Amino acid sequence: MKFFVKELDYSTRSRVEVIDITSDVEGVVRESGVRNGIVLVFAPHATAAVVLNEAEEGLMRDIVNKILELFPREGNYAHNLIDDNANSHLASAFLGQGKDIPLVNGSMVRGTWQNILLIELDGPRARRRVVVEVIGE
Amino acid sequence: MKFFVKELDYSTRSRVEVIDITSDVEGVVRESGVRNGIVLVFAPHATAAVVLNEAEEGLMRDIVNKILELFPREGNYAHNLIDDNANSHLASAFLGQGKDIPLVNGSMVRGTWQNILLIELDGPRARRRVVVEVIGE
Amino acid sequence: MKFFVKELDYSTRSRVEVIDITSDVEGVVRESGVRNGIVLVFAPHATAAVVLNEAEEGLMRDIVNKILELFPREGNYAHNLIDDNANSHLASAFLGQGKDIPLVNGSMVRGTWQNILLIELDGPRARRRVVVEVIGE
Repeated sequence: MKFFVKELDYSTRSRVEVIDITSDVEGVVRESGVRNGIVLVFAPHATAAVVLNEAEEGLMRDIVNKILELFPREGNYAHNLIDDNANSHLASAFLGQGKDIPLVNGSMVRGTWQNILLIELDGPRARRRVVVEVIGE
Repeated sequence: MKFFVKELDYSTRSRVEVIDITSDVEGVVRESGVRNGIVLVFAPHATAAVVLNEAEEGLMRDIVNKILELFPREGNYAHNLIDDNANSHLASAFLGQGKDIPLVNGSMVRGTWQNILLIELDGPRARRRVVVEVIGE
Repeated sequence: MKFFVKELDYSTRSRVEVIDITSDVEGVVRESGVRNGIVLVFAPHATAAVVLNEAEEGLMRDIVNKILELFPREGNYAHNLIDDNANSHLASAFLGQGKDIPLVNGSMVRGTWQNILLIELDGPRARRRVVVEVIGE
């Protein structure tokens, strides 16, 4: 079994923002030399998320709007007594920070419109980390 | 390490629909010969989802209704300027297209009411794919 | 490849409750002897969930409140004709029962505020199971 791990870093510019990281992840998969297995794309953060979906500009705005509708910044949040980002944590908990993608014959199996999106939920931040782990043969 | 992958195909009949695929996935696991590891059930689509829950008919209708309540078809969606399925993409992004299940002694570890459900979010479609990957020993 | 699996058991005291299980999962990872791979934390239940987020007391209350806001106990649920926990199932389906965490050099890669939280959605229960699977080398 091969195991390969690499960290990707991103700086973000808005409080809530969607960043297409597909080609960076594909680069890590190529570098790994693994042909068949699992690719785990994981953001080690409690106020960010990783989702799979279309990287169309309008949809990326819709994702931001839906997040702020379901998890509005203002609200009667207990966590905001010690910080001001309860809604960022809640959105992160619901969306999840990691996604697994099957790796078959050297390519991630994904749909035409199924890109890998990093979601910033409490930006801007100078450095957001994404750990890409490739495990297999 | 063994690696086994097989694609299952489904045709769907409604715009939003829940399909119990548990026994098909169990068939792939048996065929794989893998006894201990991980089973990744992954829909390579941006307008479908895979979740684990009870395959009770009433609950499956409740899931459809909750999806349409949180992600209504009509709305001020930017993506709908180029397509008419923004709510399908949003529901897919929030629910996720893949689930991992532990495989122990030849059986997926799952609760009594924890079936594997494919959710169509932009149907009907002639062919929806589900990739089942079994990795382990 | 090494494969190690262990079950953790919890009793819960409320209908909806958040329990920090991070140190228990870390104990299983140490016991496994695996240094690099994937840790799958999976609740084999259809009315519980596993999420990654901060184990701050106020935020844990916010998580409970947000769950009950998005998935209220009272509602026109078809599943409630045969049981009274449709909202528990719906929250579980949306949050997910399993999370994967990268394991690198003997440690789970996770953010400072990214604890492993078991969420009870239909308690109290005498015994809720969490299966921790460690796979790698």
